[in-house]
Amino acid sequence: MSDATEVCWLTVRQLSRALVNGEISIHDLVNVFLARAAEFNPASKAFIDVYADSARAHASTLAEKPGSGMLYGIPYGLKDLIDIKGHRTSAGSAVFADNIASDDAHVVSQLTAAGAVCLGKLNLHEFAYGATGENTRYGTAVNAYDSSRLAGGSSSGSAAAVAWGLSPFALGTDTGGSVRSPAALSGLVGLKPTYGRISMRGVTPYSWSLDHLGILSRDVRDCALILQTLAEPDLADPGSTNRPTDQYLPEVDSLEDLTGRNIGVPRQFFYEHVDPEILSATERVISFLEKKGATVREVETPDLNFSRTVSLTIQMPEALSFHMPWLEKRAGDYGEDFRTGLALGQQILAEHYVRAKRLMTHYRTQIDDVLETVDILVTPSTPIVAPKVGAVEVETEGLTEPVGNAMMRFTNFFNTTGHPAISIPSGMHSLGLPMGVQLVGKAFGEASLLAFAHLINSHRQFKLPLPKIN
Amino acid sequence: MSDATEVCWLTVRQLSRALVNGEISIHDLVNVFLARAAEFNPASKAFIDVYADSARAHASTLAEKPGSGMLYGIPYGLKDLIDIKGHRTSAGSAVFADNIASDDAHVVSQLTAAGAVCLGKLNLHEFAYGATGENTRYGTAVNAYDSSRLAGGSSSGSAAAVAWGLSPFALGTDTGGSVRSPAALSGLVGLKPTYGRISMRGVTPYSWSLDHLGILSRDVRDCALILQTLAEPDLADPGSTNRPTDQYLPEVDSLEDLTGRNIGVPRQFFYEHVDPEILSATERVISFLEKKGATVREVETPDLNFSRTVSLTIQMPEALSFHMPWLEKRAGDYGEDFRTGLALGQQILAEHYVRAKRLMTHYRTQIDDVLETVDILVTPSTPIVAPKVGAVEVETEGLTEPVGNAMMRFTNFFNTTGHPAISIPSGMHSLGLPMGVQLVGKAFGEASLLAFAHLINSHRQFKLPLPKIN
Repeated sequence: MSDATEVCWLTVRQLSRALVNGEISIHDLVNVFLARAAEFNPASKAFIDVYADSARAHASTLAEKPGSGMLYGIPYGLKDLIDIKGHRTSAGSAVFADNIASDDAHVVSQLTAAGAVCLGKLNLHEFAYGATGENTRYGTAVNAYDSSRLAGGSSSGSAAAVAWGLSPFALGTDTGGSVRSPAALSGLVGLKPTYGRISMRGVTPYSWSLDHLGILSRDVRDCALILQTLAEPDLADPGSTNRPTDQYLPEVDSLEDLTGRNIGVPRQFFYEHVDPEILSATERVISFLEKKGATVREVETPDLNFSRTVSLTIQMPEALSFHMPWLEKRAGDYGEDFRTGLALGQQILAEHYVRAKRLMTHYRTQIDDVLETVDILVTPSTPIVAPKVGAVEVETEGLTEPVGNAMMRFTNFFNTTGHPAISIPSGMHSLGLPMGVQLVGKAFGEASLLAFAHLINSHRQFKLPLPKIN
Repeated sequence: MSDATEVCWLTVRQLSRALVNGEISIHDLVNVFLARAAEFNPASKAFIDVYADSARAHASTLAEKPGSGMLYGIPYGLKDLIDIKGHRTSAGSAVFADNIASDDAHVVSQLTAAGAVCLGKLNLHEFAYGATGENTRYGTAVNAYDSSRLAGGSSSGSAAAVAWGLSPFALGTDTGGSVRSPAALSGLVGLKPTYGRISMRGVTPYSWSLDHLGILSRDVRDCALILQTLAEPDLADPGSTNRPTDQYLPEVDSLEDLTGRNIGVPRQFFYEHVDPEILSATERVISFLEKKGATVREVETPDLNFSRTVSLTIQMPEALSFHMPWLEKRAGDYGEDFRTGLALGQQILAEHYVRAKRLMTHYRTQIDDVLETVDILVTPSTPIVAPKVGAVEVETEGLTEPVGNAMMRFTNFFNTTGHPAISIPSGMHSLGLPMGVQLVGKAFGEASLLAFAHLINSHRQFKLPLPKIN
């Protein structure tokens, strides 16, 4: 096996092969990542808590009774909204600083059963409120390609951990784009599966009508592999779909010729006020698919400006309902931005919330109808590259908006519809920063969505250089 | 076949046998009920619209190509919230007086496919808001046992039609007890299946989180037969469960010995402030089940006074969201009571609505847990017998409350939990009015619930005399 600096950039499947072939031991693999976390966490701020002792102990246990499956012995990180028994779930907040989980989240149980080793808990925007990942208590996770810039959020630590080579994959949550947006800005693959596909049991809620568990990984094949494990039905969660898991991996490699396939391009709203280099990169992805035989069609979607209001009208009362007991006692422990948001939530009328929920159904139906005519939708993942830490507003081709709005502008809508959506790299910006393209698939059509994503993601044209980290 | 006065009191299964044996023709059967509707609708106010021509035409079509199945040729009535193509759905309101349905409701498609013949549309409380069934525009459906008293509501015409012998069965909707309460007060069987069991497509919504389609019939076997037809999965309705229909009829006859079975009795809340004769009748049902071998256990439930507020906090904003477009243009066409309710709905905050929805989940879990320890719950269906038309308040054993609250006091809660619940007759009150007992089963446990209900319902001890109608 080559040296530690090379190991830390391998995919889960490559690591799995190295373990199976005896090129590295589980123990050494875990130590490679723990050593990198120790070295680069001060700069990256990816981890809130590193589980050095328990990860090493877990590695020893696994080594004693070798198991099977591609996740056996693979280290990973968890956004610190996700419970792992006996450890705290801080939710990135002072409010939950002493909140010890009494049980494993369903997804953690699934990963543990598969033999994966948790390295620790990853940074986030407080309680997943906000797209920047700025966090006054635990520090702000920064971009592996330029540490003066944001990693993206709210799953900021999840993106930073994988992008800085501190973990082969990570779990995050995505209520408005909190997995896809940081994946795009950090040069990674980020999947938000269909609403309900992955159980949310044991995950601190932000807004349960919109919350999705998501995956950040180095490539689409890894993403398929991890989804396969996480999507195991959760019989204890009435909200999860409890349908048998599809076989994602065989599907991923099966797509090559796109003759007869249709690509939907929603030019209105999704191709306006976008960084020109991101736009060109997106068009290159579309051309690539066209060259593979696909037909490109223009499709229509609802107005994203309005759908953002719909999303907020649902988010804030739901967040308020969860936080009220703590807010009454410990308002001072909340960050200023979230406390202000919750205060605004108190003014929203039930009538408006109900109307927003009905609009969600309407949006879902509209996109279902569009996806009757095309296999996938293609949009830029974000209209901007990673913003500077501390930036408040951003101007993009004539539109000035808050940084957080820009980061979620193209992702947010698909939380209201519940369709599966993935961000994959589309190229490098001249600023030396990654750009991403978002693909959206039919409800519960992850197998097909991942196949399209893999076709793009595995082509050399869309490979990104590694970040330059010493 | 005996005369028309006897035919009109037969069950669906008896009518089906008479048709199969050639004792009566479909045409004559339909005419028997149309003649009774013409004779008794002025007194009962059961029907809003009678479809004499289309029912006769349908009967002729059916006679030409005899089909099979026990609903073939059986007449029925529809609460006028349920769409039948080409006819108006008035919803009991001036607002919808010219609202012609463009398609059949899913349940109507199912009944038509089974060969059932729709006699017409049945009266209701305007837009199903309210328990009394009082309706200033279409008249107030009255009780077959005492026409100075209410039939019950909001499915008032559905109960009146079956109780007055104008239809062998009827469909209603139940958001707080609107099928079970009128069934109890009118001496009928009334089933609210599990939330989601029957598709609501084509039914004017009142509050979709609580709305259930329901069945009113003469006995439990008929109810099982009709449920079997209605519960066919609706692939076009994402809200319906789409699970294969259980086989209800074989189950209904299978239960005799209750050894090892457990009956849950929630004495707190459900046995307080009840008419003493209704309480005694309920106790007789419990004793009957005990004599059959069942063990009776006391069980706990949440406070019904609080759950009523939870229900209203959900109902009013949902109703408002549906009615807003009409309310803005035609406020004057709404009845005073509903308009006032909708105005109150405008004051409810999203935070409270969301909290109420979370409490619904909590209630469902609590009752799921209780139903892990017992097979069914037994409660009175209502604390009172049918009130006088126009009564505003009622005093029951020390509790004074609005008439509508009393009528829904024991049914309302199971709309918040979504469990299947049925009202069956428990005896006659000394006032010459029917009394009802409510049985509640496990979620999607209709087969078992109906078996318990049939055991009681088929025993002579609980048979009611027919109403004395000339």
